[in-house]
Amino acid sequence: MEDRCQTGIPGLDSLIDGGLPRSRSILLSGTCGTGKTVFGVQFLVNGITQYNEPGIFLTLEQSAEELRKDMLGFGINLKKLEDTGKLVIIDTSLSRVGIKNYIASVPTIPQGSFSLLPDEFDMNKVIDLTIQAAETIKAKRLVIDSLPALDYLIKETNDVRRVLINMNYALKKSDLTALIITESLEEDGISRHQVEEYIADGVIILRTNEALDTRTLKIRKMRLTKHSLKPLTFDITENGITIKEQKRGL
Amino acid sequence: MEDRCQTGIPGLDSLIDGGLPRSRSILLSGTCGTGKTVFGVQFLVNGITQYNEPGIFLTLEQSAEELRKDMLGFGINLKKLEDTGKLVIIDTSLSRVGIKNYIASVPTIPQGSFSLLPDEFDMNKVIDLTIQAAETIKAKRLVIDSLPALDYLIKETNDVRRVLINMNYALKKSDLTALIITESLEEDGISRHQVEEYIADGVIILRTNEALDTRTLKIRKMRLTKHSLKPLTFDITENGITIKEQKRGL
Amino acid sequence: MEDRCQTGIPGLDSLIDGGLPRSRSILLSGTCGTGKTVFGVQFLVNGITQYNEPGIFLTLEQSAEELRKDMLGFGINLKKLEDTGKLVIIDTSLSRVGIKNYIASVPTIPQGSFSLLPDEFDMNKVIDLTIQAAETIKAKRLVIDSLPALDYLIKETNDVRRVLINMNYALKKSDLTALIITESLEEDGISRHQVEEYIADGVIILRTNEALDTRTLKIRKMRLTKHSLKPLTFDITENGITIKEQKRGL
Amino acid sequence: MEDRCQTGIPGLDSLIDGGLPRSRSILLSGTCGTGKTVFGVQFLVNGITQYNEPGIFLTLEQSAEELRKDMLGFGINLKKLEDTGKLVIIDTSLSRVGIKNYIASVPTIPQGSFSLLPDEFDMNKVIDLTIQAAETIKAKRLVIDSLPALDYLIKETNDVRRVLINMNYALKKSDLTALIITESLEEDGISRHQVEEYIADGVIILRTNEALDTRTLKIRKMRLTKHSLKPLTFDITENGITIKEQKRGL
Amino acid sequence: MEDRCQTGIPGLDSLIDGGLPRSRSILLSGTCGTGKTVFGVQFLVNGITQYNEPGIFLTLEQSAEELRKDMLGFGINLKKLEDTGKLVIIDTSLSRVGIKNYIASVPTIPQGSFSLLPDEFDMNKVIDLTIQAAETIKAKRLVIDSLPALDYLIKETNDVRRVLINMNYALKKSDLTALIITESLEEDGISRHQVEEYIADGVIILRTNEALDTRTLKIRKMRLTKHSLKPLTFDITENGITIKEQKRGL
Amino acid sequence: MEDRCQTGIPGLDSLIDGGLPRSRSILLSGTCGTGKTVFGVQFLVNGITQYNEPGIFLTLEQSAEELRKDMLGFGINLKKLEDTGKLVIIDTSLSRVGIKNYIASVPTIPQGSFSLLPDEFDMNKVIDLTIQAAETIKAKRLVIDSLPALDYLIKETNDVRRVLINMNYALKKSDLTALIITESLEEDGISRHQVEEYIADGVIILRTNEALDTRTLKIRKMRLTKHSLKPLTFDITENGITIKEQKRGL
Repeated sequence: MEDRCQTGIPGLDSLIDGGLPRSRSILLSGTCGTGKTVFGVQFLVNGITQYNEPGIFLTLEQSAEELRKDMLGFGINLKKLEDTGKLVIIDTSLSRVGIKNYIASVPTIPQGSFSLLPDEFDMNKVIDLTIQAAETIKAKRLVIDSLPALDYLIKETNDVRRVLINMNYALKKSDLTALIITESLEEDGISRHQVEEYIADGVIILRTNEALDTRTLKIRKMRLTKHSLKPLTFDITENGITIKEQKRGL
Repeated sequence: MEDRCQTGIPGLDSLIDGGLPRSRSILLSGTCGTGKTVFGVQFLVNGITQYNEPGIFLTLEQSAEELRKDMLGFGINLKKLEDTGKLVIIDTSLSRVGIKNYIASVPTIPQGSFSLLPDEFDMNKVIDLTIQAAETIKAKRLVIDSLPALDYLIKETNDVRRVLINMNYALKKSDLTALIITESLEEDGISRHQVEEYIADGVIILRTNEALDTRTLKIRKMRLTKHSLKPLTFDITENGITIKEQKRGL
Repeated sequence: MEDRCQTGIPGLDSLIDGGLPRSRSILLSGTCGTGKTVFGVQFLVNGITQYNEPGIFLTLEQSAEELRKDMLGFGINLKKLEDTGKLVIIDTSLSRVGIKNYIASVPTIPQGSFSLLPDEFDMNKVIDLTIQAAETIKAKRLVIDSLPALDYLIKETNDVRRVLINMNYALKKSDLTALIITESLEEDGISRHQVEEYIADGVIILRTNEALDTRTLKIRKMRLTKHSLKPLTFDITENGITIKEQKRGL
Repeated sequence: MEDRCQTGIPGLDSLIDGGLPRSRSILLSGTCGTGKTVFGVQFLVNGITQYNEPGIFLTLEQSAEELRKDMLGFGINLKKLEDTGKLVIIDTSLSRVGIKNYIASVPTIPQGSFSLLPDEFDMNKVIDLTIQAAETIKAKRLVIDSLPALDYLIKETNDVRRVLINMNYALKKSDLTALIITESLEEDGISRHQVEEYIADGVIILRTNEALDTRTLKIRKMRLTKHSLKPLTFDITENGITIKEQKRGL
Repeated sequence: MEDRCQTGIPGLDSLIDGGLPRSRSILLSGTCGTGKTVFGVQFLVNGITQYNEPGIFLTLEQSAEELRKDMLGFGINLKKLEDTGKLVIIDTSLSRVGIKNYIASVPTIPQGSFSLLPDEFDMNKVIDLTIQAAETIKAKRLVIDSLPALDYLIKETNDVRRVLINMNYALKKSDLTALIITESLEEDGISRHQVEEYIADGVIILRTNEALDTRTLKIRKMRLTKHSLKPLTFDITENGITIKEQKRGL
Repeated sequence: MEDRCQTGIPGLDSLIDGGLPRSRSILLSGTCGTGKTVFGVQFLVNGITQYNEPGIFLTLEQSAEELRKDMLGFGINLKKLEDTGKLVIIDTSLSRVGIKNYIASVPTIPQGSFSLLPDEFDMNKVIDLTIQAAETIKAKRLVIDSLPALDYLIKETNDVRRVLINMNYALKKSDLTALIITESLEEDGISRHQVEEYIADGVIILRTNEALDTRTLKIRKMRLTKHSLKPLTFDITENGITIKEQKRGL
């Protein structure tokens, strides 16, 4: 089982050979309101509390403060985990401190969240910082939430694509199991730049079914893993995401 | 319940954990003729009359005068509320007074509506003015009606997107619970710039069903909130919007 | 009832609170051959003959002569109405006289139709002239037939959009109830520039149903008005448009 | 009946108030292989042989020679009609003689077909020549076959649109009843430049139904005319197009 | 029957008045893998062996060598036919000899295949050469396989369209019955430049039906020909294409 | 059978006349997660172990190391095959050595995998190197995995298309049976540049059926081969891809 990175999400790991393939990048996609951030936080928090694997949450969209508040609604106290030094939130969304200054002035990565200044946004530096933070706290897991923010942080679409490729190369060299969140515009779509699912080693899709009032999770691609192609129904409860059906195919 | 901002729309709050998540931005979307403006005015008026929370109505489209007249049809006397100092209508649509002059010459925000000159339109200034007005009357709620007007007030599409991001950042720093109205071109679409639903903390969609002669409201996304995914049928009566069905899922 | 502008089209007014909302702009849309011009002429002629409200017909497409001939087929003698001074047809389609010269040389608006020269086409001037003519004959109603002509009278698409916004502002300042006709390219579409339905206070859509050999009228949006969302079947008879069904919802 | 221009196509005139509206432009549209050219030639030939109305066939696509040969298959001898001076074919497709030279050197329009040189193609001149020819032979009918050829005879799309508008203005000033053929790319489409159906006074659509092995004709728009919206089934026999069904609605 | 050019494909000629219309250009379209090349070769080979009509195969895509090998699988020995002087394969796909040099150095067209150098590709010259070869061997039939190759042999899309028009003019002046093959990207599409079906005198479409495991041929357009609109089922056997159904409508 | 290149994939060869057509290029297409890489590796490994035909795996996307690890999950030890000198993996994805230097310094192709530096990426050189490696180990089979990587390795789309054409020409001159993998964005699509299926001699499509939880393989095009058009259901087991159904049509 050492090759699998357990999500700890009730009912999921047993359907994907025990967990996500370790040291790979998995894309988590869905339209707005499908529960992507909750999924990402559960993956990280379960890593810390159940499997003793520290983690990094890189937020490109919400502020760390909003994230902490949102998660309290699911009974998750992120601040407490940050204080243990096993969780670092890197907040690029409302930063008031420049990256360069930060890196220069801080010899060791602090255990709480810190922020980056949008005006000096440089995704390559953000990734470097992320990996540096991961090494400091011996993180095994990374969540990036979420890619569409790059569209307005980076001006040229072509640059976004290049940034995604570079990010992927950088992550491959690390040992991090990365869950990269993106938001598709249509139910049937996966990504916005049509390169994300191609470079990822796995693709998980979250959907909402308005007519049935259900939410489904689908494993679209997962290297090294035997999995069903069928959508799995899940609930979002006070404890976060729980897979309801246990059907197993393939 | 202090974390929720009650809409006061009959039948709605009980379906969304007591109201909208406070201090967040909620996108209200629908095609033309779906009742978006009525919804927004109800949210504001109920805030003043039922919950003692002053509010700002920023109209980018209709004139304040037209809005007041339209609302009389629903038994809502906006002018009366403006006179109490708890409602301010900021009218950018037919303004004859420039923003700069206005701000310079008026030390305190007046309690009635005031207008902005289109030729000098600067959305950043409009938002600053809005927040300043909000502070003056201690407003807790804001309605912006509606985003597509920015398309012809601002020339470059890219600029509109940037303005939306900036507006979102500015609103996040305030304590306002903002209901931001937009008009989609197709029933299935949410926004015109594909960034609105991404940066919003919640998305409510109004639809018309021609065949059934019904109107529906759907909670598409709502951070911090447990909600059903099913469309809720509503009526537009003399008293405005009323939710008809009380089905609750999730 | 003074707030409503009765169309006089048999069966319609009772379904829309007595008529169109007065002093507002209503968009009338449909694909080619759906009866839009007949609808517009009926609205104007009924205004003159049944409600003693003079009207202006601004034709951007057909010549006044063709229009008069077409309407004779429906038993409508436009020339006779023009002679009474209660109808003015402004003809921009085949004009041989420039706007400037015309305005300079004619101190009072004549009671018949007059023409504008395409080579000097300036929609702002046309609207000014229209409003001037409306004031002269004390017109209460205006029909503009139809917007797509602006696409080849005005070179830049962006300019057309700007012209539409300006036209809307100018009409708002007048007291005219304006019926603005446009032609959509697809059954499901409303407008060609995606701004028309947004700035209009109401949207009426005419459709043809090939399979059932029926024509339908749908109220898509109507501020200040309670209306059904269901399509209403109508006939085009020797007397023009007549609504067949009287189903009323909402 | 003097306001109607009878097509003479068996079964059609009785369905459209006796014929096409005289002195108007009617668009005849359909995808490839729907029988558009046959329809056009029948309209012209019937005019000459049954109603004593001379006609012009302006071919932008096939050569006059190919056209004559194709029509022999339907028992129509165009050459014979040309020899009577009641039919003129203007052939722009494979011309070897320039327009300018031609006009300069030929004081009166000859009674047979003549050709125009593509290299000097100028649609305005072609239309002038067409109208000049029409006056010479006292033509009442005109067929233009077909508009898509303008796409490669004229380089700029915008120019094609302008040429179509100009052509329409020129034809309006003549007394010709014009049948203008175009070829749509999709079954549901009408035209290629989305302006053709808008400027035409009528639109007839020919379709093929592969599954039923039938051909249908639909009156989509016809000013001055009461007509059914239902598709009419037709056959292409040795005698050309014959309408099969006589259902009449409206 | 001298006006028809028999395909010799079992079951086809009797459905299209005895064969293709002679001296015309017929477009043969279908998505990848529908049997277009086999159809083209059969048309040519049957011409030589059954009707004593020499033919030219102009390949823009495969090499002559690959073509010969592929056809052996259908029991067709092209080399043997080339040796009789009744078949010439013009190979532009992998040529190592320039056109100019070739034409200069070879006074008479050889009886086997020859090749053209892509670097000096000039479709006008290729067509000239093709017609010259056709005159030398008194060819009556021509197959061009296939047009999409022009997209990368010719850089500008606009140029491809112009080349197609020119090619069509050149072929019209010859007496060749030309079968021009193209490959559509979608089942419902016909051509890639939307001009091919317009300039062709006939259009034949080959399709595959995955669900029924059948192949169908449809006559979409055929000047001078009475034909059914229904798809005809066909097989590809050891002897090539054979039409299975003999239903005949009009 | 010497003209066929057996895939050795259980159940497949008997359906395609014994194997892929030898010395041709076959396109293998499917959306993400359809098993394309597994198919490619099986084709190569079976070639070595069952038919004694060495092979080259050119990876443009994953690193050789990731590929080796992924395949161990299917019981395939690539390293072992590389050590026998019958398999060479050319790795362009994470290379740290430049092509030029490499070629200069290495007189004979090594038997293990080697890497290429992205910064100096030149697909023509990569193909030259690939063919050189193929000659060294007397390879009969080649897999390229996969084409979309060229989109970010090569900047201009037009260049990608040109590279694909050149690649195809180069492969045609070799004796390699090439399986070229691409990833389509939609279930119905085949390729990203719409030229891949046109230049390939065969097209195999892999699909996933979410509702039935099945995977299917379809032969869309295969020159020289009689094959069914029906989708074949397959499983991905511990031993890789196995065709389940054996239905055979034509």
